[in-house]
Amino acid sequence: MSARVGIVGLGLLGGSLGLALRRQGIEVLGLARRDATVAEALKAGAVSFASADPVVLEGADLVVVAVPLGDTEAVLASIAPHLAPGARVTDVGSVKTSVLAAASRTLDPARNPFLGGHPMAGKEVGGIGHADADLFRGHPWILTPVVTGDPGEGPPVGFEDLWEIVTAIGARPRLVSAADHDRQVALVSHLPFLLSAVYLVAAGGRPDWEAALGVASSGFRDFSRLGAGDPEMYAAICNRNQAAIRDGLAALRAVLESVDEALTPGAEAGQEAALATFFASARALRRQWDEVKATGTSQ
Amino acid sequence: MSARVGIVGLGLLGGSLGLALRRQGIEVLGLARRDATVAEALKAGAVSFASADPVVLEGADLVVVAVPLGDTEAVLASIAPHLAPGARVTDVGSVKTSVLAAASRTLDPARNPFLGGHPMAGKEVGGIGHADADLFRGHPWILTPVVTGDPGEGPPVGFEDLWEIVTAIGARPRLVSAADHDRQVALVSHLPFLLSAVYLVAAGGRPDWEAALGVASSGFRDFSRLGAGDPEMYAAICNRNQAAIRDGLAALRAVLESVDEALTPGAEAGQEAALATFFASARALRRQWDEVKATGTSQ
Repeated sequence: MSARVGIVGLGLLGGSLGLALRRQGIEVLGLARRDATVAEALKAGAVSFASADPVVLEGADLVVVAVPLGDTEAVLASIAPHLAPGARVTDVGSVKTSVLAAASRTLDPARNPFLGGHPMAGKEVGGIGHADADLFRGHPWILTPVVTGDPGEGPPVGFEDLWEIVTAIGARPRLVSAADHDRQVALVSHLPFLLSAVYLVAAGGRPDWEAALGVASSGFRDFSRLGAGDPEMYAAICNRNQAAIRDGLAALRAVLESVDEALTPGAEAGQEAALATFFASARALRRQWDEVKATGTSQ
Repeated sequence: MSARVGIVGLGLLGGSLGLALRRQGIEVLGLARRDATVAEALKAGAVSFASADPVVLEGADLVVVAVPLGDTEAVLASIAPHLAPGARVTDVGSVKTSVLAAASRTLDPARNPFLGGHPMAGKEVGGIGHADADLFRGHPWILTPVVTGDPGEGPPVGFEDLWEIVTAIGARPRLVSAADHDRQVALVSHLPFLLSAVYLVAAGGRPDWEAALGVASSGFRDFSRLGAGDPEMYAAICNRNQAAIRDGLAALRAVLESVDEALTPGAEAGQEAALATFFASARALRRQWDEVKATGTSQ
């Protein structure tokens, strides 16, 4: 593998990718906004060379944009003049259709083809200081060669080296259309975050909130953990995946209404049996995930 | 301490309490429905003596009912004829106002006073086989001497030995009115469970559900864990704490509606800032709990 990989943004994801690539002997050119990050990435061995000046990308065959989702379009626009003809570009953002639209506005596809990417890995904490060469090992790395429809199989044309690199660092490349990806992550990632945050704000406004914290235990802990996620990051995500999230919210509000009705005073025995049936179906759905995990088709 | 303690129901809670009391040298009389449980409790050393016949309770000064919430009233009625005059009764159920009402229907308060209790401890798994003498250590054990209003301070009159026992096994007795207790656990326990279950059913009905499970990770895992809880147990709880849960649901549905509106297509920049502010308030509320934990006022 002779490709030189440019990484834009040397935080947790960019830094971890750099460490993983360097371990494979791949040359990495890093671009960061702050000089301190450049220095830290060099010291950590996450890059072969790094700079705060985008000219550093001129020698890259493949460029991975690993910046906050909200910054993606501006960053693509700012690096475009410094990309070599034929250099290909990918990203690691949590929403894909909006990123593909941003790429089509900022890059010339004949000169610098773009392929959306999303490694399904992360940590609670960010920054190069928490970078880890094994962050992506065993996790899916989604690639979105098409916006809708069948993404095909195997390495997308022109991005064979990206496929090879993703595999080399232990991740599992998986092809999904951008629209399908966005609906899937809305369902299992954005919606849980949103509900956790909505729960905190609703519960936090109740008069019993402070006293209730004194009796909160592990259920509360796990359920509310997501809601404490990075506000800026999640605002950027939710704002760029509105349609898929609102579809999920509509389904959720309908179920919530039916549960609320089931809890209105009425014939106690029948109500309790109906609730038990409802909760049993929830449990069965959760167990479906246990099976998916057990058969190794997920992380 | 010369009180003999009767325990009705030798599952996870009853069995753990028995083990903890026996370790303190306290005599424990156990009542279980099945002979196999009686044998297992004896073998585990969770009881001094046990039987499937309620006559075993005749020698008890204090009786702890540790049966599923939905069985409480029937169990109280069935043991009432076997309680010694002056024997006091308590329970470990997750909802308190409904249990107090059940006790007032089944026990003569002049002959057998009742005090509601709720140890804030548990496990994912049930049964005497998982019983643990340290299950309650460090956790609050709520006692509800009044239905509403100020529960006072220190051991409730007539239940000094219960207070002493709770303290002896390492739990921390805390006085709360039954109504306040029910609103507090609705907020930090029943509502998170309900939302987790509602989420599973809503998401599980979406066409992308199965594919989405393939990209689900730790956020999904934690958020959906509660929803896989025991359907019968949660149906009994939710059905007996309807008013408090519906108050929480109403607040939640209002917040959900405002978030849904914030996600409708509009002026992108202002929307994203508003979402970030909302998510920041959620994070601040979650951090309030971290502080409560750190100062040791919770478990």
